[in-house]
Amino acid sequence: MSHFTDALADAVLARRTPVCVGLDPRWEQLPAPLAGAHVDSTAGRAAAYREFCSGVIDAVADLVPVVKPQSAFFEELGPVGVTALVDVIAYAQQRGLLVILDAKRGDIGSTAEAYARGMLGRDAAPWRGDALTVNPYLGEDSLTPFVEVAGQRGAGLFVLVKTSNPGSGLLQDLVAGEQTIYRHTAALVERMSAETAGRHGYGIVGAVAGATYPEQLVELRAAMPHTWFLVPGYGSQGAGAADVAGAFDDRGLGAVVNNSRALIFAFRRGEYAERFGEAKWQDAVAAATRDMISELAAGSPAGKLQGK
Amino acid sequence: MSHFTDALADAVLARRTPVCVGLDPRWEQLPAPLAGAHVDSTAGRAAAYREFCSGVIDAVADLVPVVKPQSAFFEELGPVGVTALVDVIAYAQQRGLLVILDAKRGDIGSTAEAYARGMLGRDAAPWRGDALTVNPYLGEDSLTPFVEVAGQRGAGLFVLVKTSNPGSGLLQDLVAGEQTIYRHTAALVERMSAETAGRHGYGIVGAVAGATYPEQLVELRAAMPHTWFLVPGYGSQGAGAADVAGAFDDRGLGAVVNNSRALIFAFRRGEYAERFGEAKWQDAVAAATRDMISELAAGSPAGKLQGK
Repeated sequence: MSHFTDALADAVLARRTPVCVGLDPRWEQLPAPLAGAHVDSTAGRAAAYREFCSGVIDAVADLVPVVKPQSAFFEELGPVGVTALVDVIAYAQQRGLLVILDAKRGDIGSTAEAYARGMLGRDAAPWRGDALTVNPYLGEDSLTPFVEVAGQRGAGLFVLVKTSNPGSGLLQDLVAGEQTIYRHTAALVERMSAETAGRHGYGIVGAVAGATYPEQLVELRAAMPHTWFLVPGYGSQGAGAADVAGAFDDRGLGAVVNNSRALIFAFRRGEYAERFGEAKWQDAVAAATRDMISELAAGSPAGKLQGK
Repeated sequence: MSHFTDALADAVLARRTPVCVGLDPRWEQLPAPLAGAHVDSTAGRAAAYREFCSGVIDAVADLVPVVKPQSAFFEELGPVGVTALVDVIAYAQQRGLLVILDAKRGDIGSTAEAYARGMLGRDAAPWRGDALTVNPYLGEDSLTPFVEVAGQRGAGLFVLVKTSNPGSGLLQDLVAGEQTIYRHTAALVERMSAETAGRHGYGIVGAVAGATYPEQLVELRAAMPHTWFLVPGYGSQGAGAADVAGAFDDRGLGAVVNNSRALIFAFRRGEYAERFGEAKWQDAVAAATRDMISELAAGSPAGKLQGK
């Protein structure tokens, strides 16, 4: 049986970068030539999302180890959207990428188990996720079923610990018993990761920790030595390489850094718009991804992966 | 534009009970004659879930105001399961029931908006929910998009506050600034509900508060005068009428009490198994639902709805 975080670390080492490309299709922002070829209906949008995300995957498959589809944009379209999502996940895997399904599920007991069975495991689960993001608000008995199914299927989890949004502090930063709530969550996650550590020292229960809170990333890296981080908030949410530097270990492992909009819609912004425009949007995706890979290598321990 | 909680209160008054029937189909527990008519595949199970849930709806449509499908069991089957879920929701609405979609979504910004647009509103949303359960861990900016879309579409929300599971205390019961985390969540929800209060005094942002924590129900009822409660945990999770009594106001309004397994799989247990058996499983559902309605009327302020 494979071990998700070992597979992730191996893929990061092979591609020599921890960049994760977020697949967040939005109808209004698709390249005009692509959107124009589809009817504006749920089925038409789903087909456009499938085509767009497959195009992004083609552009980055040789550059990065992992992609993260955002389930909400597909679910918004109903069953046809979910079908498109499953197709996109399968295509990414066919192109050699790992897939973190960003669906932020959370429930208890047999209900959590149903989500886990449906979403975790590329061979066993209809949704085919190699990993899934999950929400800890319901407590440890809501996470255990996910961890069990993930373990059985060589899949992984990323538990929301300290999220990247401005309002994340409302509950996560409250202090109880001299520790923030996110540290309480972190303690639970680290215990579960220590119990499932693989060859590279990391367990199958990762943590979501936002790039927009650099100090907390440093704090959490120290507190969670066996926990791999999924770091959102790079790019459009304002964080750069220096902000995420604290998420890595001294080998340049221990974190993947996600960027969605600034990569997949690169053809809409600044130099990429000028160099490529809408017609060559896939070249813009590839160029923006290469630039992010370079930025991270130059400005964070991810440079170790390239011998820097 | 209709107001969800006004519609819910009107339906509770019309049916004279706050019982909510949970639609949690599980393949292994379906009536043998029904399951036997379907192939054991994702498509076959989805068809069986559609038939079973429609049968439950037929059995309870004249008895209760609202049903709560558990999204996880449908999502477990992939796109065909989501299609079955949408069909079940539409059928419940066609039979005059309100539908709380129990999907516990939670995300931020435009992603939260995508979930909200996909799931809230029987006319506008592919998933057709009249209301949706949501998770507060990401903070206020994760709830606002849901509240806005719900308000625009006459739909409602139920935010997880104090859940019914044994492990809910891990984060929810931590004390920060002299208040538990669930009270911090409660304060946010109550503010949003006060701002959206309708004819009956309740806002469109409800709270999930478990029947298994009776003292906290009393505490939350006092702290959240404008907030309608969705109370899970009755029946199979061990709570009875006395446990949920504190969830109601003195008119018998302010809460719906959910029961899933003990109603929909009544044909499997005790007297219902003897009286009806698997062949008459729908009669068992109706009888168990009538008994729960009577229990609640006898042992809680819900009796006010029947003039008791």
